[in-house]
Amino acid sequence: MRNTAILLISCPDRKGLVAAIADFLYRHGANILHADQHQDNEQGLFFMRVEWDLADFDLDAGTFRERFRRVAERLEMAWRLEYSAEPASMAIFVSRYQHCLVDLLYRHRIGELACRVPVIISNHPDAQPVADFYGVPFRHVPVTGENKAAAARCQMELLEEYGVDLVVLARYMQVLPADFVSRYRQRIINVHHSFLPAFSGARPYQAAFQRGVKLIGATSHYVTEALDDGPIIEQDVRRISHRDQLEDLVQKGRDLERMVLSRAVRWHLEHRILCYGNKTVVFD
Amino acid sequence: MRNTAILLISCPDRKGLVAAIADFLYRHGANILHADQHQDNEQGLFFMRVEWDLADFDLDAGTFRERFRRVAERLEMAWRLEYSAEPASMAIFVSRYQHCLVDLLYRHRIGELACRVPVIISNHPDAQPVADFYGVPFRHVPVTGENKAAAARCQMELLEEYGVDLVVLARYMQVLPADFVSRYRQRIINVHHSFLPAFSGARPYQAAFQRGVKLIGATSHYVTEALDDGPIIEQDVRRISHRDQLEDLVQKGRDLERMVLSRAVRWHLEHRILCYGNKTVVFD
Amino acid sequence: MRNTAILLISCPDRKGLVAAIADFLYRHGANILHADQHQDNEQGLFFMRVEWDLADFDLDAGTFRERFRRVAERLEMAWRLEYSAEPASMAIFVSRYQHCLVDLLYRHRIGELACRVPVIISNHPDAQPVADFYGVPFRHVPVTGENKAAAARCQMELLEEYGVDLVVLARYMQVLPADFVSRYRQRIINVHHSFLPAFSGARPYQAAFQRGVKLIGATSHYVTEALDDGPIIEQDVRRISHRDQLEDLVQKGRDLERMVLSRAVRWHLEHRILCYGNKTVVFD
Amino acid sequence: MRNTAILLISCPDRKGLVAAIADFLYRHGANILHADQHQDNEQGLFFMRVEWDLADFDLDAGTFRERFRRVAERLEMAWRLEYSAEPASMAIFVSRYQHCLVDLLYRHRIGELACRVPVIISNHPDAQPVADFYGVPFRHVPVTGENKAAAARCQMELLEEYGVDLVVLARYMQVLPADFVSRYRQRIINVHHSFLPAFSGARPYQAAFQRGVKLIGATSHYVTEALDDGPIIEQDVRRISHRDQLEDLVQKGRDLERMVLSRAVRWHLEHRILCYGNKTVVFD
Repeated sequence: MRNTAILLISCPDRKGLVAAIADFLYRHGANILHADQHQDNEQGLFFMRVEWDLADFDLDAGTFRERFRRVAERLEMAWRLEYSAEPASMAIFVSRYQHCLVDLLYRHRIGELACRVPVIISNHPDAQPVADFYGVPFRHVPVTGENKAAAARCQMELLEEYGVDLVVLARYMQVLPADFVSRYRQRIINVHHSFLPAFSGARPYQAAFQRGVKLIGATSHYVTEALDDGPIIEQDVRRISHRDQLEDLVQKGRDLERMVLSRAVRWHLEHRILCYGNKTVVFD
Repeated sequence: MRNTAILLISCPDRKGLVAAIADFLYRHGANILHADQHQDNEQGLFFMRVEWDLADFDLDAGTFRERFRRVAERLEMAWRLEYSAEPASMAIFVSRYQHCLVDLLYRHRIGELACRVPVIISNHPDAQPVADFYGVPFRHVPVTGENKAAAARCQMELLEEYGVDLVVLARYMQVLPADFVSRYRQRIINVHHSFLPAFSGARPYQAAFQRGVKLIGATSHYVTEALDDGPIIEQDVRRISHRDQLEDLVQKGRDLERMVLSRAVRWHLEHRILCYGNKTVVFD
Repeated sequence: MRNTAILLISCPDRKGLVAAIADFLYRHGANILHADQHQDNEQGLFFMRVEWDLADFDLDAGTFRERFRRVAERLEMAWRLEYSAEPASMAIFVSRYQHCLVDLLYRHRIGELACRVPVIISNHPDAQPVADFYGVPFRHVPVTGENKAAAARCQMELLEEYGVDLVVLARYMQVLPADFVSRYRQRIINVHHSFLPAFSGARPYQAAFQRGVKLIGATSHYVTEALDDGPIIEQDVRRISHRDQLEDLVQKGRDLERMVLSRAVRWHLEHRILCYGNKTVVFD
Repeated sequence: MRNTAILLISCPDRKGLVAAIADFLYRHGANILHADQHQDNEQGLFFMRVEWDLADFDLDAGTFRERFRRVAERLEMAWRLEYSAEPASMAIFVSRYQHCLVDLLYRHRIGELACRVPVIISNHPDAQPVADFYGVPFRHVPVTGENKAAAARCQMELLEEYGVDLVVLARYMQVLPADFVSRYRQRIINVHHSFLPAFSGARPYQAAFQRGVKLIGATSHYVTEALDDGPIIEQDVRRISHRDQLEDLVQKGRDLERMVLSRAVRWHLEHRILCYGNKTVVFD
């Protein structure tokens, strides 16, 4: 496990930004491991992700924040500091389909996902055995037409209780209420089983089958108040033909869903994603 | 150049279809080179494409049609007979962007497309030199807000004059009127520069850029009265990232457009496509 | 679970093959659900897979074999008859890396793989808990430099004991001896973590990293006496860049391995694969 | 046409590199448009590409080289300075197959390739009309078993005469002698019609067809003395099946070849490629 810090910056573009940041880090002994910038020249925006080894770095978190604030204010930066030694805490929400859940738990076990998984929350009891096998507490929160608000409150209390930073909707089939979404802004990742914006909403495989498309897709995105309309993190597709019936689309789609969701989760956990407008920058 | 016949069949599914067709062909000496079937078990439909060498076949076109009609009527078949020695006659429509036109003409020259190209029709004069280089008559038919109906009539007269079987819209940016479309039903192929049904209509690259998708696509389809809604023949996508500006999408999209359009044209010319409902079966 | 029969045929190409087969099936009441042919016109070979509903079929397995033998002998056919109601029995071999094992077991549980899994065999004890979770007997057969032959005998006895039809090497890192391979000809599927024939043999990710390729791949194939040289069933690739270090190749490769192995296994279990020469026909 | 400078750097990794470079550029008024770094942490190497607008930059080329040399020497940098306003001069070599040539010329015409094309050189006369159409001088240099050395001398003289910076082998089927290669080190781009290192050498499509692979590929790379072994710039693949005969591989391969060659050429012309060891960093 490497001991690094990650700094994420977005601000109006201007001359001298990289020089200011690089100089600040250099003066404090940072050994930069990765640095990546992006400029949206049309909108005049600058984005940067820089990761450095903490071995010779002479600032602790508190002092860094204090000192860097002055640089940041002068240059109108929005910024975030993260430490790889402090992994995020990720809750997984699931309904009946468990392929994404099983995939995330296995990836977590073998070290692909740098996080803790303190709790799995489901509106169905089915995933209990899988949660047990992976040693993750499982909380069953039924959701009905009548108890939606109460269920959401219960879920949010659980998230508080378990100190959750990131919510992953692993084929969780209920819509979250607006106050839930706004509390976890850019911290809820969903997978939708279509190539958005095509086939948003319910039953996308049926819609794709009806339309006769030649590729099916899946999309992972941050959840916003507008359904299936949040910033897209990752998408992928797979070829189908007239030989594929609806059940074949569903089967092929499961693999797509697992891939695009797990990539999005990994990038989020590695602090590679910056949102702006309704889009994402994914530093690779 | 091989000398083959191709029979395309669609009908209600029932027992004995393959036996009846195979037996008919066998009794007349057909040496089958390719045969492919598809059954839509949900809708109870049967589709077949069979191609055979004419060397030992003992029926000419007229006699075949007469004899096979009896089999076809008994089994409620819709069918079409095509001869590889009688290539279709393909008109290319183009506006200002010539990448698809240039691509199709080059593919035709090296023998990838089994057809004649008797005429190129454009609402701009720009493509004249390319047409000249490839030795194809070029007809400039300007289209304005006022003369749409007259222009369409002129175009249809040209198609008659040149004996055209297939119209390919190679980034032709004008909408064809309903009577044109209905006269060339399933004989007009368009390329749309998005992954349909996402971003139908005007300016799809701008829309894709705005939405922040991670893959861009292109779609070739038969033209119907409903814009961008005809049966899809082929689609493909390419990965983009936040680094790609709008002009990069346009540039990457050009390659996609050439690929999906040329594949659709080739499959049509090789009589590999059957439409049903609003979908296609593409026998490969 | 549908109740169907599948007939797989390969033979010298000649006129009347489809007619003979279709006629035979029709006369006995077969309701054909899928039929697919392939002709290798260069080598003069014919391949066919036909699947039919047994509901109205008037021949049982014994009678079918007796009657069809006459047709097959006359037309020099090699053929196999399979019943979907009699799923194969698949043993999974695994070493330390469990991603393919876990993937296959989950796919089996949700019904993607039409087989029984009577036993998991490993040269390491690590996979015992996963086997237990999925309720599959686990047999630990250590393999050392000295006991190779004895270990293989032990494995073959286990395969006998559990009535195994298909052996899947899910990242099993030992080479099987020739007598093992020859006893299970075209019934051992391996996954190799490269795009064969590139980087055959040991440590393919290291080799790919050294060579600086821009795509990494994985290959599933039937095992033959020649290492990594059996008939290829499926391959897939994923893009990498200079940013990907060796560990990134390994991580991305795991997903490829799971995909190409599971597809190959499914196609084998659905009797979609015919081998000829050192190649495969995969009827989709 | 934007007026920018591009600086490409490779050196041993150490602290303060980005700070030193960014500070130098900032002090001279550079408005940075793109910057990208890469660190090979294993080998301790640092690579950077930075592009800036020249509008407010206060150093001309000569002064820049003089001043930056001091920074570079201190930090052991290998570096190159390029100006977007001084496009490279690209010669295209071609034999009989013209698909890559035609593709490059069309891309050049519509502005996808930032270069001049002063000459096309071929060992066959066939491409003369295409060269004429695009207004590019065409020089026919026959190559036989006996005149190889003389032909290479003649070609090198032509490159001198036309002031060529980059040689693109657009399916040029002759091997270039070592002195030619060493004179144009990292300035000769070839396309090989396989997924290297698989099927290097002659007749790769036949070899792929024989082996029964499920994907075919193409590779663009810098030419070195070792055949098909130079640093890989780009690769891509396309799926094939048992239905694809050799001629289908060749046809599908043509599209791959055009794509991977044109991408490599574009990246080279935009100064996005750095070689190290036998690998490339491609800054995108």
